[in-house]
Amino acid sequence: MNRESLDHHSVKLEPGLVIETRQIEMVFPEVTNHYGTLFAGDALSFMAKSAFIAASRYSRKKVVAAKSEQVDFRVPVRQGNLIELISRVVSVGNSSMTIEVELYAEDFLSGERYLGTKGKFVMVALGEDGRPTKVPTLIQKEINTL
Amino acid sequence: MNRESLDHHSVKLEPGLVIETRQIEMVFPEVTNHYGTLFAGDALSFMAKSAFIAASRYSRKKVVAAKSEQVDFRVPVRQGNLIELISRVVSVGNSSMTIEVELYAEDFLSGERYLGTKGKFVMVALGEDGRPTKVPTLIQKEINTL
Amino acid sequence: MNRESLDHHSVKLEPGLVIETRQIEMVFPEVTNHYGTLFAGDALSFMAKSAFIAASRYSRKKVVAAKSEQVDFRVPVRQGNLIELISRVVSVGNSSMTIEVELYAEDFLSGERYLGTKGKFVMVALGEDGRPTKVPTLIQKEINTL
Amino acid sequence: MNRESLDHHSVKLEPGLVIETRQIEMVFPEVTNHYGTLFAGDALSFMAKSAFIAASRYSRKKVVAAKSEQVDFRVPVRQGNLIELISRVVSVGNSSMTIEVELYAEDFLSGERYLGTKGKFVMVALGEDGRPTKVPTLIQKEINTL
Amino acid sequence: MNRESLDHHSVKLEPGLVIETRQIEMVFPEVTNHYGTLFAGDALSFMAKSAFIAASRYSRKKVVAAKSEQVDFRVPVRQGNLIELISRVVSVGNSSMTIEVELYAEDFLSGERYLGTKGKFVMVALGEDGRPTKVPTLIQKEINTL
Amino acid sequence: MNRESLDHHSVKLEPGLVIETRQIEMVFPEVTNHYGTLFAGDALSFMAKSAFIAASRYSRKKVVAAKSEQVDFRVPVRQGNLIELISRVVSVGNSSMTIEVELYAEDFLSGERYLGTKGKFVMVALGEDGRPTKVPTLIQKEINTL
Repeated sequence: MNRESLDHHSVKLEPGLVIETRQIEMVFPEVTNHYGTLFAGDALSFMAKSAFIAASRYSRKKVVAAKSEQVDFRVPVRQGNLIELISRVVSVGNSSMTIEVELYAEDFLSGERYLGTKGKFVMVALGEDGRPTKVPTLIQKEINTL
Repeated sequence: MNRESLDHHSVKLEPGLVIETRQIEMVFPEVTNHYGTLFAGDALSFMAKSAFIAASRYSRKKVVAAKSEQVDFRVPVRQGNLIELISRVVSVGNSSMTIEVELYAEDFLSGERYLGTKGKFVMVALGEDGRPTKVPTLIQKEINTL
Repeated sequence: MNRESLDHHSVKLEPGLVIETRQIEMVFPEVTNHYGTLFAGDALSFMAKSAFIAASRYSRKKVVAAKSEQVDFRVPVRQGNLIELISRVVSVGNSSMTIEVELYAEDFLSGERYLGTKGKFVMVALGEDGRPTKVPTLIQKEINTL
Repeated sequence: MNRESLDHHSVKLEPGLVIETRQIEMVFPEVTNHYGTLFAGDALSFMAKSAFIAASRYSRKKVVAAKSEQVDFRVPVRQGNLIELISRVVSVGNSSMTIEVELYAEDFLSGERYLGTKGKFVMVALGEDGRPTKVPTLIQKEINTL
Repeated sequence: MNRESLDHHSVKLEPGLVIETRQIEMVFPEVTNHYGTLFAGDALSFMAKSAFIAASRYSRKKVVAAKSEQVDFRVPVRQGNLIELISRVVSVGNSSMTIEVELYAEDFLSGERYLGTKGKFVMVALGEDGRPTKVPTLIQKEINTL
Repeated sequence: MNRESLDHHSVKLEPGLVIETRQIEMVFPEVTNHYGTLFAGDALSFMAKSAFIAASRYSRKKVVAAKSEQVDFRVPVRQGNLIELISRVVSVGNSSMTIEVELYAEDFLSGERYLGTKGKFVMVALGEDGRPTKVPTLIQKEINTL
């Protein structure tokens, strides 16, 4: 996609088009526990927000979380690092979407980057009537970022 | 435990004594999605914070989250409700503690109260050297609230 | 009250039933002044929120604060501690409720726990028309926690 | 005081010089209860912060709150208004300062402005050793704003 | 203006009357980068909020930002300081207002105060129909603070 | 770059490698003014944070903002939308980096996406001694996202 074309006009991103969403956050003091590492609750909150955005953009419907699957907190992420959340739609049902979220930590100064944790979230698309509604079929292909 | 005795003196709560922690939060606009219900990410964040407090109080050690187990978001929780998080230590290993967290929703005006979701978190106690350290044996008995 | 009965059904808590509310908060850096102790403004805010919840749950009406009575900040509460707020309805008028709030500080590691401060708040119940409305008579009895 | 003189140089405000501090805040949704008016807890928090700043600027010492006196919440302040907090040192002891805080509400569109509430806070100045220390004598005179 | 007259009555501030607004903020950890100085993004956010308030109070209309002009971040502002934002309407067009915002830093303990940065913001007044609407002519005179 | 290679090992991102950073945010109520659109102050804050991250990742040095250039707020961004910030290093001096930040708005449901605003920020790299330090030469090439 040609970025210049976006500059003065709007584009319309169809349902099923965007299957990956990336989001960067800084690990500020307010999301660390009193040991100076990213609090697990905030990691889960970032991951769920990222999954929510990915599912909303894929389906172009209202979505709600149905389930978070097991998440292992392998490696502590230190205050002052940045984290990048990469969420991808990895499978879809009739109205549900499974989103895999990877949380990478990156040290500002050294440039070291590693996978901190990952997890899956199941999101459900809702129609105007508040009931589950159909989502686009997932045609796996190369990732579309804008 | 006699509350009056707390009023002018401090008490010392030994490791292994406190096995349940309760925490009330209000569902303010900043923790709801744009459909007016508690955002799953914030629910997970509240639950993880509650599990963290319960494990810290039980072990009287530094603790970090090792794992969050599957969480189902059964019932939407509406803005303007309150939620009560009840976390209990349900089993312990050498240095790990499994905490079960229940999230109840309660309507201020009607008084209706129901279980919104529950989940388990595994927390690990760390010693001064940053390595896993022993936690007290769990002797199941009636719940000790202060 | 039998907790299991709550698991799959909702219950209805009648006005006048709940007279005590407990709320745990962590003393994170964002609520401490630049000397590392809980900022008085945040202590008052936590206490008022706790009184608000207690009065709302007791009356099952909309409530607003009418008055906060003198609060002494006896003992500094350090960053990294947790605080527990215990609010109880101690007297009621026609439409007003006096709520006593105790703020306990507890050290995660040592288990030391002490009363940091306490205060009283007067809350008023409002009816649908926005005017003061009757609240249930307080029948002092043992504390009802769920 | 000539503002231009501040532009490229620093000035030094001596202890005892600044006896009034003004602070404007907007009443955003995150400080209102679910009835659309400023939450009493947030009003108290704003007032305590304002008193803290006034006492710090007056004494040029570390200060902590010792006491908040009775505060009446006379008039609701609506979301979307702005509030102005005016804090003045009204009396001093050896190491304590009594700060009166007025909270004015102002409607953006109509320009209507009224006193929402007021209250007094006692603040204590602490020396390097953490013990109460002397504060400047209050010589009442016209208010010094910069 | 006589403050006592405000105590029990409301006053009405006409459009064009208030041309300066002052706002004090503390530089808490959550607005500093990981080098302990005020984050430029938060400085801009404080300045824009201050300009917004000044333009709203001057025009007594809904206002939106049209433009922020170049801002130089001359001098770092340290955590633990306070900042005072002084916004003044310096020129007006038909429906636009140019607001100059000065950001002063002040050290609590030493009393040292200096200009940290300044900038201009152009704000536009909107009528009920959402289209630009006329603002009062600026009659330069001594500053009116209440 | 092969994502699988990141899964179990860390990688090291050299200075000068990463020239573009993308960051997604949701337009929640707490960043909108009382007209339901993204507050200009929050837009500037998001843009500055994004520029800060881009400059830090490009230089792998401590960076501070030196200047924000004129920003036009062309198009209002509505609450409930998401925004994507795209920051790119567009030129470098000895120790300074000019970062162009584009802020795109995207409607969750319709998929409509448009450029809301853009601006430039000048960031300076600092060495261990706190003085400006050399940054890598910019060799313009295709964008490197991980």
